[in-house]
Amino acid sequence: MSMDLAELRAAFQGRLLAEPEAMAPHLTDWRRKWTGQALAVAQPDTTEGVAAVVRWCRAHGVAVVPQGGNTGLSGGATPSATGHSLVLSTTRLQRIRALDTVGQTVTAEAGVTLQQLQDAAREAGRLFPLSLAAQGTCTIGGNLATNAGGVQVLRYGNARELCLGLEVVTAEGEVWNGLRPLRKDNTGYALRDLFIGSEGTLGVITAAVLKLFPLPAAQVAAFVAVPSPAAALALLALAQERLASELTAFELMSDTCLQLVEQHVPTARRPLAEPSPWSVLLEVSSAQSEQAATQALEALLEAALDAGHVTDAAVSSSLAQFRSLWALREDISESQGAAGPTIKHDIALPIAQVPAFIAQTDALLAQHYPGLRLVVFGHLGDGNLHYNLSPPVQGMSREAFTALEAPINRLVHDAVHAAGGSISAEHGLGVLRRDESARYKSALELRLMHAIKQALDPLNHMNPGKLLG
Amino acid sequence: MSMDLAELRAAFQGRLLAEPEAMAPHLTDWRRKWTGQALAVAQPDTTEGVAAVVRWCRAHGVAVVPQGGNTGLSGGATPSATGHSLVLSTTRLQRIRALDTVGQTVTAEAGVTLQQLQDAAREAGRLFPLSLAAQGTCTIGGNLATNAGGVQVLRYGNARELCLGLEVVTAEGEVWNGLRPLRKDNTGYALRDLFIGSEGTLGVITAAVLKLFPLPAAQVAAFVAVPSPAAALALLALAQERLASELTAFELMSDTCLQLVEQHVPTARRPLAEPSPWSVLLEVSSAQSEQAATQALEALLEAALDAGHVTDAAVSSSLAQFRSLWALREDISESQGAAGPTIKHDIALPIAQVPAFIAQTDALLAQHYPGLRLVVFGHLGDGNLHYNLSPPVQGMSREAFTALEAPINRLVHDAVHAAGGSISAEHGLGVLRRDESARYKSALELRLMHAIKQALDPLNHMNPGKLLG
Repeated sequence: MSMDLAELRAAFQGRLLAEPEAMAPHLTDWRRKWTGQALAVAQPDTTEGVAAVVRWCRAHGVAVVPQGGNTGLSGGATPSATGHSLVLSTTRLQRIRALDTVGQTVTAEAGVTLQQLQDAAREAGRLFPLSLAAQGTCTIGGNLATNAGGVQVLRYGNARELCLGLEVVTAEGEVWNGLRPLRKDNTGYALRDLFIGSEGTLGVITAAVLKLFPLPAAQVAAFVAVPSPAAALALLALAQERLASELTAFELMSDTCLQLVEQHVPTARRPLAEPSPWSVLLEVSSAQSEQAATQALEALLEAALDAGHVTDAAVSSSLAQFRSLWALREDISESQGAAGPTIKHDIALPIAQVPAFIAQTDALLAQHYPGLRLVVFGHLGDGNLHYNLSPPVQGMSREAFTALEAPINRLVHDAVHAAGGSISAEHGLGVLRRDESARYKSALELRLMHAIKQALDPLNHMNPGKLLG
Repeated sequence: MSMDLAELRAAFQGRLLAEPEAMAPHLTDWRRKWTGQALAVAQPDTTEGVAAVVRWCRAHGVAVVPQGGNTGLSGGATPSATGHSLVLSTTRLQRIRALDTVGQTVTAEAGVTLQQLQDAAREAGRLFPLSLAAQGTCTIGGNLATNAGGVQVLRYGNARELCLGLEVVTAEGEVWNGLRPLRKDNTGYALRDLFIGSEGTLGVITAAVLKLFPLPAAQVAAFVAVPSPAAALALLALAQERLASELTAFELMSDTCLQLVEQHVPTARRPLAEPSPWSVLLEVSSAQSEQAATQALEALLEAALDAGHVTDAAVSSSLAQFRSLWALREDISESQGAAGPTIKHDIALPIAQVPAFIAQTDALLAQHYPGLRLVVFGHLGDGNLHYNLSPPVQGMSREAFTALEAPINRLVHDAVHAAGGSISAEHGLGVLRRDESARYKSALELRLMHAIKQALDPLNHMNPGKLLG
């Protein structure tokens, strides 16, 4: 351990990892797309410790790479190859500082996992609705730094909408206490919202006050066969009109997705006899009872069948069925990965444009890259598609497929841009989409973002090279 | 008209007012607390016109004072006394550019009034839920610039939560097109949220994409007598648990408020036989039917009566009754004004602390300023109280009462700060609360805000002296 690191070691409570094998899990992202180097990995136990680490890095010209559960998909938490970075892991900031069932808020430190937060809320008879695949590992600090989305955004919003207040260590290593548990506060600029989604480039989120909701009395899911994305959209409109905020999820998936799940998950069972080109997983939450939820859902499906939006549907009648319907949706990503290499897009569109986008972009890809399998699924209620591709059924070398990634990204993202959409709906920019995003942003928007970065991190030592080039 | 103004006049489409009588309505706020001077009042017809005006002001070192419907309560849209300002009125930016019933969004220019926006949504079978007293005059641009609140925040959020995208003229007079109608977009810093609530000090909002919701099938209100704020809070918890998001308003008011309304509004009728120290107005919206809403509300009230949270209640059974119950709440502010001078506070507290805050602060005021009438009402579901005072019933000179304003503000705001609250929940800082707010903010938070102001408005010509000192 060099002289400098000994000084750092003495500056905070917690762990400092400097041995290669101890650091290794922090130097590679979980999908193993990026690997970097670091002087060390600091895991402070307290907010003051985070501040001390940032001050040390600032004084020594070392880049700070904040890292939560390291489950990001865009390389935002992986250090660069230079080795002149320090990974600042927030995983030991583990306390739930307060839970207020009257004000319906929870104050948690950044390293609390999403699952722990959901569990703590549930134990108090409340719902913390943020929900996504990595919830057992991802941390609430990382969720906020990337403004995470997931399957309940339709009803409850992104991480941003669930956050009332933040505690942040600034680039200068000071602690900003913005942990206000208030539903209304108009006393200046939205610093909270500026740090949310900034991917650690403006400061390190160390704690947050989050909204809680009443636990629904019951949740019921339906697995619905629809002839087309347009029919799915008509079903969505009907569901929103009839169920209002009792509609808590609305997920679309193509038949290819379900085929992959069937192939790779032995326990997967399709609930409907006939295959359908598209399916919707729809969830209803009721404050009253399972009976009320089921009745509302069945009445909706009947009307949708009559209107021709739906060709068949199965409604869950037990928790086991509810979970097995959800598993069909949740296992898509892993099943696609198990089937070989993937090209993935996390896009958002104006909702009304989703059917035309899918039709046109599918056709364009079929024309230029015949045989590739389209694995399209996502949160239709938010206009957010995971518009993914896999190699042809008959196979293709990994190299040949990988070589297609850049031109296919360009084709898909150009189409997204033309439709007024976003090329990163819920995964952030990190390094993966940083340059592509800059390509579609106006010069003015980039200049405004650089001005903010310069104002809050003038030395550019907070996660440099992420989000902004 | 001086040479310079002729050049300005030629630079944009729209009106330029320079005569004293034409400018006068724009130089004084609607409560007539502040009056300033201006070189002229510009009313461009287009976003490009707004940009041209800002560029002219920038080139000539003239301060820009953006103004919407001029209904603000904090002096944020009134020019200073120097006369070296230009009022930039957005009221002629009048178009609703798009309304998408599938994506549930509306794109409106800044000068559209809140009422016009509500009406346009309703005509399309949708709800735009922002709702507040000034809605016939206030503009959506002003609502966003001040992050307006109102009576439906409990269910639908503040103006911030209702906004998906913005178009803004920057301090340099460029047009930032951030009019994205997307529910998810994680491609950089939250510029949208930075401009929302910045009170025209970072740029001029010229248009916005806003969220729409399904129109509820029915709305029912209850007027409920409760023995105390603590009982009101217990009723709120029960209502949230049973009604979830069907609970769309929860307003608290003291008996003094109702006495003032009775004295000043001849048509006002209390719905309950016996007076109660506190009352709650509660609104339920149902996606199903009036019957469903009424049943849910009556079941709630029965449970609350059994639990002792409620002593009596009346439920609306017609639209006329619904409106007359709401009028009792909506007429408080005007009735208080009609009764003489007022001292007003727009505060937010952690919801659980509201009862203790009221008890302790009432007692402190009674001790130091005996005889003053407390006129306390507000959005209990958001922890937002209008904690107001009127002179004693037996009268007090206007001068003597006005002299109490500063020390009473200090007493009340110190108590708010000690409880972790906000001294401006929904009215913004403007000039009214600018210095008081700075008193309670940390030096770090003020420094961060100044850094942002400096980054986005380096010449300090956008609404200088508002929000930040």
